[in-house]
Amino acid sequence: MNKKENILIIGAGLCGSLLALRLAQRGCNVTVYESRPDLRTTDISAGRSINLALSDRGFKALRLAGVEKKARKICIPMYGRLIHDIQGNTFSSNYSGREGESINSISRGDLNGILLTEAEKYDNLTIHFNSKCTAVDIENNTATFKNYQTKEVFTKNADVIFGTDGAGSILRKSYYLEHKFLFSYSQNYLTHGYKELEIPADANGNHQISKDYLHIWPRGDYMLIALPNLDGSFTVTLFLGHEEGVYNFKQLDSEAKITDFFKTQFPDALKLIPNIAKEFANNPTGALGTVKCSPWQYQGKTLLMGDAAHAVVPFYGQGMNASFEDVTVFDTLLDEYDDNWETIFKTFQKIRKPDTDAIADLAVENYFEMRDHVSNPLFKEKRKIEMVLEKTFPKTYFSKYSMVTFNEDISYFEAMKKGRAQDKAILNLLDDGELNDTNLNVILKKVQEATNAILEDDKIAGLK
Amino acid sequence: MNKKENILIIGAGLCGSLLALRLAQRGCNVTVYESRPDLRTTDISAGRSINLALSDRGFKALRLAGVEKKARKICIPMYGRLIHDIQGNTFSSNYSGREGESINSISRGDLNGILLTEAEKYDNLTIHFNSKCTAVDIENNTATFKNYQTKEVFTKNADVIFGTDGAGSILRKSYYLEHKFLFSYSQNYLTHGYKELEIPADANGNHQISKDYLHIWPRGDYMLIALPNLDGSFTVTLFLGHEEGVYNFKQLDSEAKITDFFKTQFPDALKLIPNIAKEFANNPTGALGTVKCSPWQYQGKTLLMGDAAHAVVPFYGQGMNASFEDVTVFDTLLDEYDDNWETIFKTFQKIRKPDTDAIADLAVENYFEMRDHVSNPLFKEKRKIEMVLEKTFPKTYFSKYSMVTFNEDISYFEAMKKGRAQDKAILNLLDDGELNDTNLNVILKKVQEATNAILEDDKIAGLK
Repeated sequence: MNKKENILIIGAGLCGSLLALRLAQRGCNVTVYESRPDLRTTDISAGRSINLALSDRGFKALRLAGVEKKARKICIPMYGRLIHDIQGNTFSSNYSGREGESINSISRGDLNGILLTEAEKYDNLTIHFNSKCTAVDIENNTATFKNYQTKEVFTKNADVIFGTDGAGSILRKSYYLEHKFLFSYSQNYLTHGYKELEIPADANGNHQISKDYLHIWPRGDYMLIALPNLDGSFTVTLFLGHEEGVYNFKQLDSEAKITDFFKTQFPDALKLIPNIAKEFANNPTGALGTVKCSPWQYQGKTLLMGDAAHAVVPFYGQGMNASFEDVTVFDTLLDEYDDNWETIFKTFQKIRKPDTDAIADLAVENYFEMRDHVSNPLFKEKRKIEMVLEKTFPKTYFSKYSMVTFNEDISYFEAMKKGRAQDKAILNLLDDGELNDTNLNVILKKVQEATNAILEDDKIAGLK
Repeated sequence: MNKKENILIIGAGLCGSLLALRLAQRGCNVTVYESRPDLRTTDISAGRSINLALSDRGFKALRLAGVEKKARKICIPMYGRLIHDIQGNTFSSNYSGREGESINSISRGDLNGILLTEAEKYDNLTIHFNSKCTAVDIENNTATFKNYQTKEVFTKNADVIFGTDGAGSILRKSYYLEHKFLFSYSQNYLTHGYKELEIPADANGNHQISKDYLHIWPRGDYMLIALPNLDGSFTVTLFLGHEEGVYNFKQLDSEAKITDFFKTQFPDALKLIPNIAKEFANNPTGALGTVKCSPWQYQGKTLLMGDAAHAVVPFYGQGMNASFEDVTVFDTLLDEYDDNWETIFKTFQKIRKPDTDAIADLAVENYFEMRDHVSNPLFKEKRKIEMVLEKTFPKTYFSKYSMVTFNEDISYFEAMKKGRAQDKAILNLLDDGELNDTNLNVILKKVQEATNAILEDDKIAGLK
């Protein structure tokens, strides 16, 4: 590619800073504008510590940019879910039957900081903070910014502009509003929202509950989850209906109601969250939405990437990983197509869109599974059998979750297609009492045959 | 319901004028504003005659409003598809194996005129033409209009406002832009667009090809269809890629290319369309999009209905029928919930949304089936068997198409769910050579059992 290319990146979040780093490594002249202050020197967390689950697709991209080791140092491995029932009993459900496979709790801010620091080592890369993009002119390839500190408004042009400006992307908005082409667009909200709370560290700075798990309190219509932080605390997230259901955010409008809700529904968690009512009232209620759109690019001059192109709900722990994987895929196309940006951009979307659509749909599905299915007997039995199959046949058997989370060489789309068929096969075999055999080879063979039959039947019916 | 209620309806298209008529019949005070001139006295067709396929769900709603007979008088029944291959051979494929079941070609303008004339018979109903809605204030329940003739701008309030203002609805836009609530919204375009052309009547005013069929020229990546008009002409629609494929709208930019395209791809049709190149150049190219959104209502004061709530692509011939069915369903809720508008509106969406989502998805699916599957041997064999089953077991067997088109008492959602399972069952039984039996009772039983097994397997797997 032409190394003199001037590249402008809107947004220095996780995707934008990794993309900037990688393009700088390839010799491009990169300028990044970020609306927020530098998170390495300013506390912009509003008192809350946001963590995410990093897994193999994310690591692959970080490896490409040479920052995997730095990221691993601030990870806390979680090997499974620890389910808390309403009586306070707990039972664990591993993510994989293979040794050592884990998802990893990591601070969004700390990881972002690592990427920014790495990126700034390159002379051919500059990052400007406090610069909010207010408009993109997609015909003239210019972006306008407002500096929050100086109040200055300025316009920059570039050979190529990347919109890695997240779910509320200004570049995507200009695609939508300018009507230069037919723009397919969807924003779909769940009826549930979320609120973050905190389980603090104990007096010695240690975790009050096991840090080796992602904790879940599933209650059918709502649930609580908790991920560990390095400082001994947990970030807790309540998922609850905005207005629907017996309990909902709208109705929990007094200290008494909030305390009562936790006392009856999450008694063990309540003991770990001091000042629950105050935290509940002070922290904002967030919306949970999926964004899909097409096209992602215009005339080989602007491209959406990461959440700006495909925001997903958090229930598969893949939002960040999918955005990082965008960079991996994009990087291979830079090798393949030199500096033919329009071909690179079009090919990128062609390859990538079925996969980001798939992870978006899987994430919404998992929202129902996490709330509900973890307490459904048939689904529990399926998990058990899958753990045994993965343990016994570690190189042969992969659950849908494993394909999505631990197999970065299987695309999200393939993982979804095969994983859904496999889930359906196992559930129906279980329901028919067909998996009572003691010989695991027989069970594996039955599952494989039923999965292939399902895929074949769908194919004959012309289904994807 | 409170008969004094002041109701404002934005849009006097097919859905708006039927809704207005029905609410006037129930005694409401109804005022309707329509952006276009009165189509009964002004030719607004831009020289083209637009026709649609009216079927049983549409007739049911027209019956409720007492206008079924008037509509039937201007219908041309089409009993099946007449497929034209590239050599000019034709073969027919009936819509149903039952006697007399047809879809019906009808002029959009003439049908709309009937509804307007009926509506205006009511003293408690007024229709204002040339009044374009420019904004709706959903907090204060007012709508602003501009009169195209007088240039006057005026604002009206009402107890209840209905947005039956089509795919580009201004009420829906205000839901989207005002950010008063989480508004899920999607607009999805197909890569294909359409262009209307005309086969004129012969010198004696007769149809040049059979008027008993919907004609299709399927060519895989593109197709031509034609529906008959009362004056002996046919309205022809070309569906073709905007920019993709060997032939596409962008590339057909000269008289020579257009004529060559028709000469090689649709030679028999070309003979029937004089001045093809001129018509092609003069008539606009339209986009094909699906719109879904939620919620449809706000605070029991405004409600989207028809295309404004759920625009679909035309490939199942159900857009108008679905909008008319909205009125049928809405009418039953007026009986049930008196004048509790918020309950009526919420219940309306709860009942109706799964059905309008289903017909939207079925219409997109049929786009691929019409282009492609009509020439796929396995699909052809399926159609044949289904025709025989419907003829032999007219009260027992219904194809997916029949359930959607001729069975107004089965919801679109149920028709989709059962129809898809049935299609999959037949295609797989055919592929396995399981339907070679000469005893039709055996075949019917096999299809029914396989269909039920598919539905049961999906249910166990937690799929809808």
